[in-house]
Amino acid sequence: MPRQLDFFFYIGSTYTYLAVNRVEEMAARERISLRWRPFNARSIMLEQNNRPFVGKPVKLNYMWRDVERRANRYGIPFKSIPTYPVDAEELANRVAVVASLDGWCPEYTKAIYRTWFLENKVPGDVEYLRLLLSQLGKDSDATIARANGQEVRDRYASETEVAKQLGIFGSPTFMWGSELFWGDDRFEDAIEWSKSHRN
Amino acid sequence: MPRQLDFFFYIGSTYTYLAVNRVEEMAARERISLRWRPFNARSIMLEQNNRPFVGKPVKLNYMWRDVERRANRYGIPFKSIPTYPVDAEELANRVAVVASLDGWCPEYTKAIYRTWFLENKVPGDVEYLRLLLSQLGKDSDATIARANGQEVRDRYASETEVAKQLGIFGSPTFMWGSELFWGDDRFEDAIEWSKSHRN
Repeated sequence: MPRQLDFFFYIGSTYTYLAVNRVEEMAARERISLRWRPFNARSIMLEQNNRPFVGKPVKLNYMWRDVERRANRYGIPFKSIPTYPVDAEELANRVAVVASLDGWCPEYTKAIYRTWFLENKVPGDVEYLRLLLSQLGKDSDATIARANGQEVRDRYASETEVAKQLGIFGSPTFMWGSELFWGDDRFEDAIEWSKSHRN
Repeated sequence: MPRQLDFFFYIGSTYTYLAVNRVEEMAARERISLRWRPFNARSIMLEQNNRPFVGKPVKLNYMWRDVERRANRYGIPFKSIPTYPVDAEELANRVAVVASLDGWCPEYTKAIYRTWFLENKVPGDVEYLRLLLSQLGKDSDATIARANGQEVRDRYASETEVAKQLGIFGSPTFMWGSELFWGDDRFEDAIEWSKSHRN
């Protein structure tokens, strides 16, 4: 059995762009299996009064500069600062829940982040979502209907509750058992930890 | 001339514990000269409504866990979570200004952080500060008198204004020319950057 890291993420987090573009390759190299788990980081952050950028233009500016520099460092494309925040209705994230249930979560999440960051297609825009799903070979109408249905809404809520109970407060977060690593820049720490600690 | 990085720091920042214990060795290895510049991060953060931990117990708990893990990773001692926050009167930081003017800032800052984190001696406690200064071979009374004098208060304020104008919003921050790197975990990025960009 390969070691398994849980990769909790939220479409709308900026640093998650870096993570979705680099975790798979490194996990494969390290023989780690990643479980992609979409959850509602926004609701947890609002509940905890954790608003890192709202009303903080200096910190916000730095964040984008840091994301750009880190993208360059990793060889991940970065064009310009995209629309932010996004996905007010959580639709793009609920589609990620469908994708996680059906086994195409990585390709969907990478595609929606790529077009968000490189073409400024806003996650959550339903017309664009239809197009993206078609390009991924999915039935757009059926997928969006499921994302809007109660079962997926419940699943999104229950995964968010799991995340909250684990102490997760932002995206991306990597979990190794009960050990929590927050941030794209802690992925390496999580891997190192998993080598020397039981799950 | 060696390359020079400005190391802006605030005694009271938690992650700065990691930085003060590791930047010198790495800078020496990389032939980089570090200018230690104490500034009032607290006042900038308050002004920008940037309160990462106040009223955020989940994030606060994680921060300490992350500091501990990172300390272990770097081989820096960590015993238990010390008193926090500290130095309400900015005295320990104003002494750092004296130390920076007189050329003993690294040894002072490392000593005050070490005793804060390992012996829970609270930075800003004037009795303990006297003892620490004596142990460092300094004239305690004269140093504290200078730290409380107008010249050092003005210098602390002007350095804080410089930091603010540079876009600095937290501690530690590394500056290479106008390029800003925030956080102990961006020290390596700053060094890499300095190798390939003009100052």
